[in-house]
Amino acid sequence: MQQIKQIKEIQTFALESRRAGKTIALVPTMGFLHDGHLKLMQKAREKADLVIVSIFVNPIQFGPSEDLDRYPRDLKGDLAKCDAVGVDVVFTPTNKDLYPDLFQTSVDVKEISKGLCGAGRPGHFQGVTTVVSKLFNLTLPNIAFFGEKDFQQLAVIRRMVTDLNFPIEIVGVPIVREKDGLAMSSRNANLPVRERKEAPYIYQALSYAKSLYEQGNRDSEELRRTVLDKLEEKIKSPFQVEYIKVYDALNLTEINGPITTPAILLIAVHLGGPRLIDNLQL
Amino acid sequence: MQQIKQIKEIQTFALESRRAGKTIALVPTMGFLHDGHLKLMQKAREKADLVIVSIFVNPIQFGPSEDLDRYPRDLKGDLAKCDAVGVDVVFTPTNKDLYPDLFQTSVDVKEISKGLCGAGRPGHFQGVTTVVSKLFNLTLPNIAFFGEKDFQQLAVIRRMVTDLNFPIEIVGVPIVREKDGLAMSSRNANLPVRERKEAPYIYQALSYAKSLYEQGNRDSEELRRTVLDKLEEKIKSPFQVEYIKVYDALNLTEINGPITTPAILLIAVHLGGPRLIDNLQL
Repeated sequence: MQQIKQIKEIQTFALESRRAGKTIALVPTMGFLHDGHLKLMQKAREKADLVIVSIFVNPIQFGPSEDLDRYPRDLKGDLAKCDAVGVDVVFTPTNKDLYPDLFQTSVDVKEISKGLCGAGRPGHFQGVTTVVSKLFNLTLPNIAFFGEKDFQQLAVIRRMVTDLNFPIEIVGVPIVREKDGLAMSSRNANLPVRERKEAPYIYQALSYAKSLYEQGNRDSEELRRTVLDKLEEKIKSPFQVEYIKVYDALNLTEINGPITTPAILLIAVHLGGPRLIDNLQL
Repeated sequence: MQQIKQIKEIQTFALESRRAGKTIALVPTMGFLHDGHLKLMQKAREKADLVIVSIFVNPIQFGPSEDLDRYPRDLKGDLAKCDAVGVDVVFTPTNKDLYPDLFQTSVDVKEISKGLCGAGRPGHFQGVTTVVSKLFNLTLPNIAFFGEKDFQQLAVIRRMVTDLNFPIEIVGVPIVREKDGLAMSSRNANLPVRERKEAPYIYQALSYAKSLYEQGNRDSEELRRTVLDKLEEKIKSPFQVEYIKVYDALNLTEINGPITTPAILLIAVHLGGPRLIDNLQL
């Protein structure tokens, strides 16, 4: 496994690999890798001749009051994990190389970036789509893998790839959870002990709402209320719900009222510092 | 020479050509081809195994009050011209294929899109960079050719390619002029007879200012004034100057006052319907 830091070097590697007929899979990450990331890499390993993992904590997808400085990092550990899974190249660019002084271009997916995390994190998805466009052009993948925990991000990237005609297949990979049900996230490392113990109630609340849905409850408002009630019943630490929503899983439009299409229940909660997100297909 | 209309077909052609080790040159156009376009194609022909010319009158780069409906078209004549120059593929996509119903993504170069044509045509460059990104991803060129008549467009595209790390070399090709000096443009076809006779005064005015520059005049304000005076002296038809500006040719920032760096004189004039642009390196 090799580590490449220079953008010219990774692009030359990608161009030469493609010209040699090799297929490339990309797994874009912000590092501090957990089993969710490893699952993406394993899927990538099955699908392409070469697997590139990018590790880059992308400053332009963080708002001014967000946790860029507190985002956890462990490059040495990350490299060992990538090596163990059989990754070929870990790409670790610098801020300065990706965003030089005169940098001024953005990629924007307009409608579906607006609600959910886009509402609470203005500019976030523009930062994501801009850096992902850059990573696509630098690593030239045939296929790229994203986690379904960031469900809206996955939808936004699919839309961008379709709209800008990137010749890339996008694969979403199901959420990997801790044994207690908490969706894996690098940000979980920043949970204080008490909040870490209570965080699994988020998934439990979603699951309880899903059980009501499976018993025939199709009222999105009632399901949302149920999730909130469960959280308030179970979590004793201070927490703040950013959103609990039911969305059409295909169009990514909000469902208010009766659920008649494939739907997904999504949540964002601030708990003890970190902002946690999760979702569950109904 | 083949004509390809389908976006899947052109992308498959491009992917297979690149995998076969062929280099691709792209010449993006809006059709109604003139000798300026043919010069781009000849340059492209010298530089790559395969030359793709795209012909697409891109609706999203026209403002609501602009000349989209009056933009001249002649696909049959264009195909003959491309064939004569040795083009391999003419790509003629439809609006519906490039902009399907849910289309909602844009590419935006922020600072250098603001002045000059960007000031008079809000949204224009966003439309250009968005469609050019799409054309790049569909035709996968190693190298792409743009005319220097659209000087700001060329700068904006260079910036986009750098910022988004497209693995593409951008080549600017000098303006081709009619015998009387008028910069070639598809829009010249929409000039009424009298205005067509007066249109060469635009280039004459720029040239006169350049002669003053060469005699030592470094005052951008005086040079601009000179151009305007010449136009007002020579052109009898009604016309409207949108801008006459001196810009730093490298940074694309306006020069007000003494000219101390490589500079370019740029103009946009509405004359008898069409909006004409031209420029001259000082």
